[in-house]
Amino acid sequence: MREAEIKALLVDPVNNAPVILLKDKHSTKAMPIWIGETEAMSIALELQNQYFPRPLSHDLMKGIINHLGGKVEKVAITALKEGTYYATIFLREKKGEIIELDARPSDSLALALRMGSPIYIADEVFDSSAIESPFAEEDAFQDFVEYNMDLSEFKKILK
Amino acid sequence: MREAEIKALLVDPVNNAPVILLKDKHSTKAMPIWIGETEAMSIALELQNQYFPRPLSHDLMKGIINHLGGKVEKVAITALKEGTYYATIFLREKKGEIIELDARPSDSLALALRMGSPIYIADEVFDSSAIESPFAEEDAFQDFVEYNMDLSEFKKILK
Repeated sequence: MREAEIKALLVDPVNNAPVILLKDKHSTKAMPIWIGETEAMSIALELQNQYFPRPLSHDLMKGIINHLGGKVEKVAITALKEGTYYATIFLREKKGEIIELDARPSDSLALALRMGSPIYIADEVFDSSAIESPFAEEDAFQDFVEYNMDLSEFKKILK
Repeated sequence: MREAEIKALLVDPVNNAPVILLKDKHSTKAMPIWIGETEAMSIALELQNQYFPRPLSHDLMKGIINHLGGKVEKVAITALKEGTYYATIFLREKKGEIIELDARPSDSLALALRMGSPIYIADEVFDSSAIESPFAEEDAFQDFVEYNMDLSEFKKILK
């Protein structure tokens, strides 16, 4: 497992789909993950400290966890199967027991950001799909960049 | 407060936006609410007992509540302000205390369906925006009907 951070939200020019760039904290490599538009907006708003006038699904999720005395210990991207990334949310309940919940990466990341939880990627997943990060030098989060990274090349790796 | 049920998912022909039709259980009247596409899909799948290959946000929310020993007592559409509906989720925690969480109607309904919780509408909200239900006679849920209901007339009421 290696710790990661959300480095950028890109737009795949081929289909206008949002892509999240998850960068290894201790190298210059990153891994792109395609996500839905609603989830991308939820992640972008939180990263920019902006708020939607009404609670989004992940804001509600945060409220539920806090009110029920839970805590998100960490989230992890754990597997890549047939082009789909799998994630796990490690939820600590009041008595200290940790429950592992199967989740999509987008929900896991949107929730981790709101709960201040670290993000991890399993080594075998990262090794199989990481690329040199286009924003390795930048400190700040890059939001919705129209970046002409070779995403089509990357898609071939996934298949 | 009156108990309601999700009667149909319509498509507003003007902007292709999904509209949920919330019917009073004890009359032939219903209230349309415009919601996002992601939330509409989440509601439609649950109503049709179909499942997305990966957990959607509301499936994850259900898992979180169950694992933390919570229960959704009910959800309610509580207010209508400047064309926006407000909802409240009544969450019971382990010790029995009930917490009221501010939420969007779409999240509340998607969650209520998954938790088997009743749906209510505040009388003043229902009275101000209910119309005669186009599907009052039908028993089954109507999914994504292209119905030429006069939604533009309804929008005027909201304004």
